[in-house]
Amino acid sequence: MTKLAVIALGGNALLRGDQAGTIEEQEQNTTDTLENLVFLLEDGYNIVITHGNGPQVGNILMRNDAGEEKFGIPQMPLDICVADSQGGIGYMIERMLHNVLKRHNIRRDVVTLVTMVQVDKDDKAFANPTKRVGKTCTREEADKLTREKGWEFREEVKVKDGWRRVVPSPEPISIMNENVVKAMADSGTIVIAAGGGGVPVYFDENNNVRPAEAVVDKDLAGSLLAARIGADEFYILTDVPYVYLNFNRPGQKPVEFLDKSDTVRYLSAGMFAEGSMAPKIRACLQFIEMGGQKSVITEAFKLADKKYGTKITMEYEN
Amino acid sequence: MTKLAVIALGGNALLRGDQAGTIEEQEQNTTDTLENLVFLLEDGYNIVITHGNGPQVGNILMRNDAGEEKFGIPQMPLDICVADSQGGIGYMIERMLHNVLKRHNIRRDVVTLVTMVQVDKDDKAFANPTKRVGKTCTREEADKLTREKGWEFREEVKVKDGWRRVVPSPEPISIMNENVVKAMADSGTIVIAAGGGGVPVYFDENNNVRPAEAVVDKDLAGSLLAARIGADEFYILTDVPYVYLNFNRPGQKPVEFLDKSDTVRYLSAGMFAEGSMAPKIRACLQFIEMGGQKSVITEAFKLADKKYGTKITMEYEN
Repeated sequence: MTKLAVIALGGNALLRGDQAGTIEEQEQNTTDTLENLVFLLEDGYNIVITHGNGPQVGNILMRNDAGEEKFGIPQMPLDICVADSQGGIGYMIERMLHNVLKRHNIRRDVVTLVTMVQVDKDDKAFANPTKRVGKTCTREEADKLTREKGWEFREEVKVKDGWRRVVPSPEPISIMNENVVKAMADSGTIVIAAGGGGVPVYFDENNNVRPAEAVVDKDLAGSLLAARIGADEFYILTDVPYVYLNFNRPGQKPVEFLDKSDTVRYLSAGMFAEGSMAPKIRACLQFIEMGGQKSVITEAFKLADKKYGTKITMEYEN
Repeated sequence: MTKLAVIALGGNALLRGDQAGTIEEQEQNTTDTLENLVFLLEDGYNIVITHGNGPQVGNILMRNDAGEEKFGIPQMPLDICVADSQGGIGYMIERMLHNVLKRHNIRRDVVTLVTMVQVDKDDKAFANPTKRVGKTCTREEADKLTREKGWEFREEVKVKDGWRRVVPSPEPISIMNENVVKAMADSGTIVIAAGGGGVPVYFDENNNVRPAEAVVDKDLAGSLLAARIGADEFYILTDVPYVYLNFNRPGQKPVEFLDKSDTVRYLSAGMFAEGSMAPKIRACLQFIEMGGQKSVITEAFKLADKKYGTKITMEYEN
């Protein structure tokens, strides 16, 4: 049986925090990351790729702001900015992947789908926006934007008089066009989808699709997509080769295998950092709870080396 | 036999020149335009939608400029900007179309593909850039950008000391993933593809896919796509209900039917304006020469009314 894997590329896999963000940097990082997926294809896997968009959509939002100020161009809402980032990043991944496949003499179609993700308009996240987006403002600028656009702001911890817009991060409840993704992936086409967690939308009382001014966690969206298309394996590529218990704290310890019950226990005990590894672990857990065989969290450049990576499964293998 | 139609939405169908460009305006125009495609679906057609991106990618380029100036964010090259616009516009069309279909109780999947279009790197257009993009500069700014980035500029006719970047507009020679578009469209899925003429790319001497700093005419890309996927009909929706001979000149006359030989003859005689109707007519001609049955140029809001529109066919019907 051909196996199906969904691979979530983290922000670092495309653009590192210590880089300026030029297209040359992004193309090189992307190529380096994609080289590590080749072994899956050589093993006969079908694959779906999803990706983050944090640095890119951050830049798009800042450019929106600057464009309005300098030229009076109306700003686009967050949903359009996320969709823009899916277009630009998806195209970049697709093009670099063509060239990687060519180098390895692998023939596969590669397709990028702009993807909406359905959220629940009553998700409790809407009452408590937590995800910071866009530029850092002064209090005065923030107050003005709150009056004009109804945006919410939170103070930055490390910046004096620094405020940033916060938006809700609701849970994804379905991936639009998942049947299309599945059919294409099962036929061997490499599908790039649900970038940046997807464009969050909800169905209103008339069943119309409306945009939610929110962002969805890309690992949760990827995990949901993986489960719904019947993937066997779900990979999260990040900047560490293992999940660690007590990361950056006394007793730090890498973990190679986790079963469901240990994963739940460690999560409850707060042994994974919120805002960092904990959401990735929850995404992995969601995947195996929905029937997936194995979730793996690893460093992009260590993916092909199976001694690295934390493997999360329902039961420990013997 | 189910018929397959490709519909190219012009810039005006999404955003009119007299509008500021807010998202509300774009969503309303898009919905109004899409309502006119419903009769095709009710007649059982399969459809593929392509669209322009002129105003949107213009705004993205200006925001890039303003974002670099205000925040030091590196500018993205033209290929990424076009791909961004495919994401944002494609998502908007897809979402509005969902709601239009819902209103008419039509069940179809709608999918947006980010699309590359192959051009010939030796296309003579590269030696003669003609397509104006981005903001209007002074001579001094233009000279600086030419030194720094190698961009070419042309003087604006109606603006004092106004210069704009010009990029090549090469001919599309193939649409990447046309087989995927065909398979999906033939199965009844509505596919949005090749937006903004597609992201132009070429194959280098090692067969790697490289971006071309260029833009492809969206009607030519749409017509090529239509022919290659075996569409029966190709529609260009614009802001006039007919093609006119001698438009805005003495002897102006609407034309309801054109066969190939008259079309070629009128084109040669310069009876259609270059930079306006002539490229649309060439796109229509390309479609019927490649085996399509009928090309139609009409106003978006007159599409359902068959007494409007200029129909171009190989031979006049009896």
